Amino acid sequence: MKLATLDDGSPDGRLIVVSPDATRFLSCDQYATLQSALDDWTAAEQRLRALHERLVCGEGASVPIDRLLAPLPRAWQWLDGSAFRSHGALMEQLFGTAPPPPDRPLMYQGMSHRFLSATEDVVLPRTEDGIDFEGEFGVVTDAVPLGVTPDQALSHIKLIVQINDWSLRVLAGPEMKTGFGWVQAKPACSVAPFAVTPDALGDAWRDGRVCLPLVVDWNGRRFGAPLGDLMGFGFHQLVAHAASTRNLCAGTIIGSGTVSNPDYRVVGSTCIAERRGIEMLDQGSPQTAYMAFGDTVRMEATASDGSVLFGCIEQRVVATTARG
Amino acid sequence: MKLATLDDGSPDGRLIVVSPDATRFLSCDQYATLQSALDDWTAAEQRLRALHERLVCGEGASVPIDRLLAPLPRAWQWLDGSAFRSHGALMEQLFGTAPPPPDRPLMYQGMSHRFLSATEDVVLPRTEDGIDFEGEFGVVTDAVPLGVTPDQALSHIKLIVQINDWSLRVLAGPEMKTGFGWVQAKPACSVAPFAVTPDALGDAWRDGRVCLPLVVDWNGRRFGAPLGDLMGFGFHQLVAHAASTRNLCAGTIIGSGTVSNPDYRVVGSTCIAERRGIEMLDQGSPQTAYMAFGDTVRMEATASDGSVLFGCIEQRVVATTARG
Repeated sequence: MKLATLDDGSPDGRLIVVSPDATRFLSCDQYATLQSALDDWTAAEQRLRALHERLVCGEGASVPIDRLLAPLPRAWQWLDGSAFRSHGALMEQLFGTAPPPPDRPLMYQGMSHRFLSATEDVVLPRTEDGIDFEGEFGVVTDAVPLGVTPDQALSHIKLIVQINDWSLRVLAGPEMKTGFGWVQAKPACSVAPFAVTPDALGDAWRDGRVCLPLVVDWNGRRFGAPLGDLMGFGFHQLVAHAASTRNLCAGTIIGSGTVSNPDYRVVGSTCIAERRGIEMLDQGSPQTAYMAFGDTVRMEATASDGSVLFGCIEQRVVATTARG
Repeated sequence: MKLATLDDGSPDGRLIVVSPDATRFLSCDQYATLQSALDDWTAAEQRLRALHERLVCGEGASVPIDRLLAPLPRAWQWLDGSAFRSHGALMEQLFGTAPPPPDRPLMYQGMSHRFLSATEDVVLPRTEDGIDFEGEFGVVTDAVPLGVTPDQALSHIKLIVQINDWSLRVLAGPEMKTGFGWVQAKPACSVAPFAVTPDALGDAWRDGRVCLPLVVDWNGRRFGAPLGDLMGFGFHQLVAHAASTRNLCAGTIIGSGTVSNPDYRVVGSTCIAERRGIEMLDQGSPQTAYMAFGDTVRMEATASDGSVLFGCIEQRVVATTARG
C-alpha cells in the first residue's frame, strides 16, 4: 500500500491512498492526515487497505504529482542513524572522529517541524556552508514502548520512506567536535512523495533493510547507485536503539543514514562528502566541490521490474535571497 | 501574563490564562491550545491579555494545580543550549571534551514529542544510566525566519519557562564522543506549570536573560540556587544561532542549559554532574552518586518579593517496571 499527502493549504496536508502504479488516488474520510492515521494505526490500516483494494480495481482520480507534500510534512520526531559502515569509516577519516563502538548504532536527533516536498526548491543561505545531499531510506513507526527488543521493533515499522537529508558540511565538523551534534549543519530534509507499507516492497524488504539501489543524479549526471542491503544495523535495531530510554511517539521517522557500499569507487555515492573522502584517500585532497546555487539533485530507489516505489526526489538549491 | 495547560485528556491539553498569583484561571474560547495561540500570536496575545485583565479584576475559577500539564505537552522543536560557561568548563573536564569556540553557543536538538508535567513521576529504566536532573530556563518563540539577528530575535521570544532537562550521564559521555550528540542520554524534559510573558518578569528579564535564582532541592535538601543572570549568551543570541540555517516554527522551545555560577562552591549547582565535576577538581574523584529510584527533586525560580513565577517542579524518579 502506498500513501501520500496532498497539499490542501493546511500544515499537515490531506492523506491519500495511491494506486500501486502511482497514477490514481482516493482520500480517506476517517483519517484526514497521515499523523492521525499513525496515531490509530490498527484501525486506520484496515480503512486504508480497503481504499487500496478499490484502487487496485481501477477506481480513483488522477494523482496531481506536483501537489504532493512530504508524506509527513512535519513530524513529532526525526532520528537519523548512520548505519552504513563504509560511509561512516570515510567520514571518520574526513572529520577526524573516532569510530563508534561496533555494537551501537550512530544516531542523532534532527529537526522535524518541517520536511520539504520532493520537488520544492531548497532554500539555503550560503554555498560557503558546504551544501550537500544525502540519500537515505527511512521508516515511520507507530507508538513504540521504551525498552522494545529489535524483534519487537520490527512490527512497529509501519511505513518506509526515501529521504534526502540536506547537510551543510562546513558547519558539520565544528558541531561534531562540541559533542552536542548537529543543529546548524542539518536544515530540513526532503522526502519522496510515497510512503509504502513494508509488504509493498515484497522481497526488497529483508531483515529490516530496504534491499534496493538508491540512484542519485547530480545536475543530470549519475553520481551513485549503492544498494540499501548493506546496512550494518537493520531498521528494527535502529528503532530499538532509539527506544532504549524513551517511548517513541507514533509518526517517529528513523533514517538509515547515507546509503553507501564498500565498493563505492564502482557504485558511486549518495552524498558529495563521501566522494570527497574517497578523493582524500586516493588523491590526498578532496577534488569535488559541494553544491552551487542552481544545482539539482535527483534521487530514486528503483525496483527490479521498473515499477514506481517511493517516487522521485528532484530538487534545486537556491539562495535565501532568491526567495520572493 | 501567565499561561498554563490543563489536562483534558487530549495530547495538547487545554490552554488557560492564569492570574498573576496563580490561584485563578480563565480559558480562551478562540484558542484551545497553547500551540494554536503561538501559531497566531499577534491576534492571540490580545485575546489572552483581555482574559488576563479580567483575572486581575478578580474573575476566574480556582486553578486545579494537580491537573496542569507542561505548558506545551509536546512541541515541534526543542533546542537546548549550554550557555553557562562555569558549567561548560566543568563538563569539559568531566567528559574530556574540548572547549567550544568562544563566539558560538553550544546547542543540541532534543526530543520534543513529550514534555512531562511538573509533578508526574519520571519513569526511567536503570539507575546504572546515571540519572541526573538539570535546572534550566527556556524561551518559547513564535515563527522565526532564517537569518534573524540577535536583536531581531529578542522580539520573537514570546514566553519564558522553567525546565528540568533529565539526563542519563553514563550514556552521555559515549554519545558525545560519536559527535552525533545525545539520543539515549536525553529522555523527556519536565516543565514548570506556568509559561510567562517577558513583561511578567519585570526587571528580572534583562538582556535576554532570566535574572533570578533557580532554587533546587534534592530529596528535601538544598542543592543549589545559582542566578540566571550569568548566561554567557542571552536567549536572543541562542535563538539567532538556531535560526542561522533554518526557519524556526512557532512553539520552538530553546533552553539555557544548566544554570550555573562561577562561585558554585558557595551557591551550589542545579545538576549532580556539576557537583561531581567540582568533587573531581577538589578531591580527585566524584563523591556524590547520581539519583536512586524514589528520589525527588524540586526546582523553583523565586522572585525577590516571593511571588509565584513559573510555579514549581517537584517530581519523583521511578523504575520502568514500577509502572502500572
